[in-house]
Amino acid sequence: MATPQPADLTLEEKASLTSGSSFWLTEPIERVDVPAIMLTDGPHGLRKQEEGADHLGLSQSVPATCFPPAVALGSSWDTELAERVGAAIAREAAAHGVSVVLGPGINIKRSLLCGRNFEYVSEDPHVSGRVGAALVRGLQSEGIGSSLKHFAANNQEHDRMRVSSDVDPRPLREIYLRAFEHVVRTAQPWTVMCSYNRINGVYASEDPWLLTEVLREEWGFEGLVVSDWGAVNDRVRGLAAGLDLEMPSSGGRTDAQIVRAVRAGELDEGVLDQAAGRVLRLIDRATASQEGRAASGAGVDVDAHHALAREAAGSCVVLLQNDGDLLPLDRSASIAVIGEFARTPRFQGAGSSVINPTRLDAALDSIVATAAGDVAYAPGFSIDPAATEAEQATLAAEAVELAARSQVAVLFLGLPGPLESEGFDRTDIDLPAEQVRLVDAVRAVNPRVVVVLANGGVVALPFAADVPAILEGWLLGQAGGGAVADVLFGDVTPSGKLTETIPLRLEDSPAYLDFPGDFSHVRYGEGLFVGYRWYDARSIRVAFPFGHGLSYTTFAYGDLTAQAVEVPGEGGIEVSLDVTNTGSRRGREVVQFYVAVPESGVQRPVRELAGFAAVTLDPGETRTVTTRLERADLAYWDVRVGRWVLEPGRYVVEAGASSRDLRSRARVDLAGEEVVIALTPESSLGEALRHPSAGPVMRAALTQMLAAPGEETLSEDAEEVLRMIDSLPLNRLGVFAGGADIGPFLETILAAAEA
Amino acid sequence: MATPQPADLTLEEKASLTSGSSFWLTEPIERVDVPAIMLTDGPHGLRKQEEGADHLGLSQSVPATCFPPAVALGSSWDTELAERVGAAIAREAAAHGVSVVLGPGINIKRSLLCGRNFEYVSEDPHVSGRVGAALVRGLQSEGIGSSLKHFAANNQEHDRMRVSSDVDPRPLREIYLRAFEHVVRTAQPWTVMCSYNRINGVYASEDPWLLTEVLREEWGFEGLVVSDWGAVNDRVRGLAAGLDLEMPSSGGRTDAQIVRAVRAGELDEGVLDQAAGRVLRLIDRATASQEGRAASGAGVDVDAHHALAREAAGSCVVLLQNDGDLLPLDRSASIAVIGEFARTPRFQGAGSSVINPTRLDAALDSIVATAAGDVAYAPGFSIDPAATEAEQATLAAEAVELAARSQVAVLFLGLPGPLESEGFDRTDIDLPAEQVRLVDAVRAVNPRVVVVLANGGVVALPFAADVPAILEGWLLGQAGGGAVADVLFGDVTPSGKLTETIPLRLEDSPAYLDFPGDFSHVRYGEGLFVGYRWYDARSIRVAFPFGHGLSYTTFAYGDLTAQAVEVPGEGGIEVSLDVTNTGSRRGREVVQFYVAVPESGVQRPVRELAGFAAVTLDPGETRTVTTRLERADLAYWDVRVGRWVLEPGRYVVEAGASSRDLRSRARVDLAGEEVVIALTPESSLGEALRHPSAGPVMRAALTQMLAAPGEETLSEDAEEVLRMIDSLPLNRLGVFAGGADIGPFLETILAAAEA
Repeated sequence: MATPQPADLTLEEKASLTSGSSFWLTEPIERVDVPAIMLTDGPHGLRKQEEGADHLGLSQSVPATCFPPAVALGSSWDTELAERVGAAIAREAAAHGVSVVLGPGINIKRSLLCGRNFEYVSEDPHVSGRVGAALVRGLQSEGIGSSLKHFAANNQEHDRMRVSSDVDPRPLREIYLRAFEHVVRTAQPWTVMCSYNRINGVYASEDPWLLTEVLREEWGFEGLVVSDWGAVNDRVRGLAAGLDLEMPSSGGRTDAQIVRAVRAGELDEGVLDQAAGRVLRLIDRATASQEGRAASGAGVDVDAHHALAREAAGSCVVLLQNDGDLLPLDRSASIAVIGEFARTPRFQGAGSSVINPTRLDAALDSIVATAAGDVAYAPGFSIDPAATEAEQATLAAEAVELAARSQVAVLFLGLPGPLESEGFDRTDIDLPAEQVRLVDAVRAVNPRVVVVLANGGVVALPFAADVPAILEGWLLGQAGGGAVADVLFGDVTPSGKLTETIPLRLEDSPAYLDFPGDFSHVRYGEGLFVGYRWYDARSIRVAFPFGHGLSYTTFAYGDLTAQAVEVPGEGGIEVSLDVTNTGSRRGREVVQFYVAVPESGVQRPVRELAGFAAVTLDPGETRTVTTRLERADLAYWDVRVGRWVLEPGRYVVEAGASSRDLRSRARVDLAGEEVVIALTPESSLGEALRHPSAGPVMRAALTQMLAAPGEETLSEDAEEVLRMIDSLPLNRLGVFAGGADIGPFLETILAAAEA
Repeated sequence: MATPQPADLTLEEKASLTSGSSFWLTEPIERVDVPAIMLTDGPHGLRKQEEGADHLGLSQSVPATCFPPAVALGSSWDTELAERVGAAIAREAAAHGVSVVLGPGINIKRSLLCGRNFEYVSEDPHVSGRVGAALVRGLQSEGIGSSLKHFAANNQEHDRMRVSSDVDPRPLREIYLRAFEHVVRTAQPWTVMCSYNRINGVYASEDPWLLTEVLREEWGFEGLVVSDWGAVNDRVRGLAAGLDLEMPSSGGRTDAQIVRAVRAGELDEGVLDQAAGRVLRLIDRATASQEGRAASGAGVDVDAHHALAREAAGSCVVLLQNDGDLLPLDRSASIAVIGEFARTPRFQGAGSSVINPTRLDAALDSIVATAAGDVAYAPGFSIDPAATEAEQATLAAEAVELAARSQVAVLFLGLPGPLESEGFDRTDIDLPAEQVRLVDAVRAVNPRVVVVLANGGVVALPFAADVPAILEGWLLGQAGGGAVADVLFGDVTPSGKLTETIPLRLEDSPAYLDFPGDFSHVRYGEGLFVGYRWYDARSIRVAFPFGHGLSYTTFAYGDLTAQAVEVPGEGGIEVSLDVTNTGSRRGREVVQFYVAVPESGVQRPVRELAGFAAVTLDPGETRTVTTRLERADLAYWDVRVGRWVLEPGRYVVEAGASSRDLRSRARVDLAGEEVVIALTPESSLGEALRHPSAGPVMRAALTQMLAAPGEETLSEDAEEVLRMIDSLPLNRLGVFAGGADIGPFLETILAAAEA
């Protein structure tokens, strides 16, 4: 039977389609055989609730593979891996009859404190967009829709359902929307999920500029916009703005509002037809997928997915430091494994993304399984908030004793789960004090300390200068324990790189003084200068810079070449350089390309990531790494003309092993596009003087006005006066000419500008 | 004859009154004997142009005493002195037939780079307001009107005639308007000058909120609003907004616009009557003053004014450091005086405030006159921009040679005049490189170095750790040379304190990344955190903190006592402490009182200046210093209710010799005023739970909803859920209750809130 169209439906049926029938299902219309489809949580695994789910959507879910959350997966800088993870999640969704998985989340980590940072990729929009697009491609390659979220400028949990993210046009475009734009344009997610918050005072769920002008008209989005669960404020206004589907069910109340609004002539029925049509198309797509899969009969290979989760986790670990090549560990060494997290993995964050894992590897078990020498364990600290100081001290003493009689101590530290969650933000970036004390106590008896971190958000590392080796594991998913063992013993050579800066102090961070805001407003006062853009612009020392990550081998960078690719309206820079593995192990290097426009006519960051490329090399091997830096990553958003502008002029490209380990540099001139701003009566004297055609006319007139009698040039004093009144609007020249009527003069100048 | 009223005038006459007749004069109306009065530049002296003035208002002016510009006068923290300076300027104005002096300028020094910082008092609104009010009182005590400027948020020169200062309500009120509010409320300036710039997109010259609601209706301003010269954008709109007088003359063009608008019914004639009435009242006031003075026949005592300028300058000098008590100088020592500024004083800034001084003291002459030992001079560097490196090197070598054979070297460094001016901003805070090199070369041959600085804006002091003594003279006016000699030899004991932080690096400063903006918008992204509020909140090391300044004697602070003064709608804190002169010279100490509200319900700076008091003590003498910290300096601006709120609770007062030399502390509880925000359907679940009367009802209902069957309290898990949905608006509870209609429940809660 042919898919019904909106025209086949009654007004009530169309309205009903645009909201859920329950917490996770769309509304079916039996009369015309429109089935319900299921949307359910991701993003790093399937969270499909078991039958009899509570209304808050938080009860137990079916077992599913818990892949590394975005905080970790991003650190792999591996889009092919992200795509495979996305596809695996999709296969699990398919097996459970789920049509849309709510993810990926690609909001920018504006503050270290955002409680949901573990669900997001980076402080940088380029890498967020690339990893996000890969996840969407992966999910959708298996016929499962993604829901790109949370659109947009949802960068904190505090007061998230009301807070207005007050952000200026350039940071909004260049930082907060940029990754969304990339994913929409290149991967066309089936759905985009609007966020809870307001943007400059307007709810994302009812912002026609955001949901229609930008998303559809500018970016060409073809899918459906779904509300975050409970994000609808005014349903009719939302529908008119471009919000197609309200979730979860409103029990029919808001559908009735739509019907009333259409009947009262307050809402164009065409708008409803469009939204209902989009819901129908989504259902159609989902149904077609399901039918295709039923034919193929493919199921889920739980073991293979666990293995993928382990592979992924191994690619995510970031080796922050490794003095004296303490890592990889000697398999035959006696190892003190210390820390509660070695046996009680901290592997995911709290909130709507909680996966019920198919299995769960503890690092301790994996270490025991891999090591050849003695492995002994001590918890070192308790993560029970009720634990007393005395209990903590006893645990620490036991661990210190163990470390003293071992050849190496591996300390599993991290943030206890309740400290980070969807729904609230952190208030500091400190590890629990007993853990920091434990590091000091252990290293006092055994300096051969490896710290392995488990944390969803950045933590301060006050001991960084005092321990030789640190592995940042973030949250690694269900197979993280095995992956950490793989890295510790060198079965996997680490290749992760930070997608966020680890600063020395929270006080150094960009949003420190305007997060999370007061009275439902948060000012994005740091503007463009988020993450490394801030630390670099202000020359602030950091603990570990954006892009940093070591390997067990070393890489040498050759000379960078950069070539302009001049394609009208497109263009970009082709970059390439040779990378050589100069160490003794096979390894993977992520080469980052940063771009600066030193003579830009607008304020720009010191450098911005515009591309990256990875290469895996055997010892001694050299390969050429090539990529194209795209126009979208080189342009700035010009607020005068309301569009992206690729400035003409000199671009400097730097190839780095991190944002502060820049190895090679090249310069390239781009033709770009001149922005021509017409002269108006409100233009300034300086703008007129610098205008290509009006400038000479202007100068001649001013010389006549200001030069000494008989002189043909201006005196130094007169030139100084001009400098002082550079910003004088042309329409006010009269008051500085004795109230003269400067109308005719102004006409001459404006005419010259047209010439 | 009785003063004419607007009703006595024709429409054209009234319109003509509301703009100037020339660059400096108001429009006379001979028919009804309304004379013209003259307004002319200040602020730190009279700049009355000689006859035949150019239209730009920048030609030579009559000789007048150049008092220390605000950058220096502020550093005295001496309101009595500022009042005497104001009165002296007024006497000179009166002698020249000037009725209104354009000043003081009390804009906040938001950025170190603002080209006009030398005309402003401080980075802090409290001291700006106190010094500004004193200047107004002084001027007006002699029957001369002041023009408080530049109203408002005019904190840069770049694009100043168009730029929009985009600033949030709290910083606008608490930082940028606060000093204006104080001056208007306490000193009632005859006029307020609106600034060139826009504020949040609206020209100050046509902003009814700024010029009428805030200035008149809230603050009770009774005078006249005059445009900055050329600040009128749309004359009719300006008049309607509350701009009474356009200056300079528009040649009648804009008057005609007003007449047209009234005739066309686009402008209420009552608005024009009000403005014309205010102009008439100003003229009236001015005329009455003139008549009074003519009767008294008082003239100007040029010598006395020069002496006052010297006294004032001596009070302004800030002794930044004085290791080993190198200062005061031994009169019999052989002194190398080095630096062009010793013989060519840098004593004022450039632009509309340039005074033609009645005389000018060079420090070199004053040192020679005071010293008993040998004084020799070497320029050390040239301030001629055309000077070559070789010429600079020769000058430096000569100076080094001189320093080597002298007992002490006094280096006069500073910013060459062309680097700082009205009309443009600086781009760095560096002293010229040859001067910094000179310091290093001189101290290499003679470590006994005293640096004397002349600069209108803050400069970086890379040599601060390497030289024993530094005097920050800022710009000291025409008698600064003598005053510096007074301080160097101890005839004056320095007592100035910084009214702005000297940071280590420009990059550390609050507005570094959003100054001066792009495309006529500048975002005040640092919010409340201007000046020391920023450095303190982010724990950034500085070169010399706000409030810092040494003396030749020392002071001990006793215990601080702080007592609540509970006056309904007023209130404040009475503070007092004993200060003892523990050194061997008579000296003056400025005790600063900083306030913190550690448990504030809103974001607040770490500490804010809320008062100061000075005491002059003989050696060994102790006196009790007492002042009242006023409600206006303790309250915050609550954006929810749109008014100042004195929070109930604990206030911490610290008495400091600087913002980072806090000597004594007291705590005091204030009753304050609770802000009661009504619960609405948009209130959050958390707000309802915490509401005094609705909270218990809310909790009972949620418990019934979420508790396990038979349980009367919520499980830990359920409590965690509540924490996660704390910000959920009440009107969206339904979607998390299976789409239930929560209307009746909501009514119950809101009713409970009313109870």
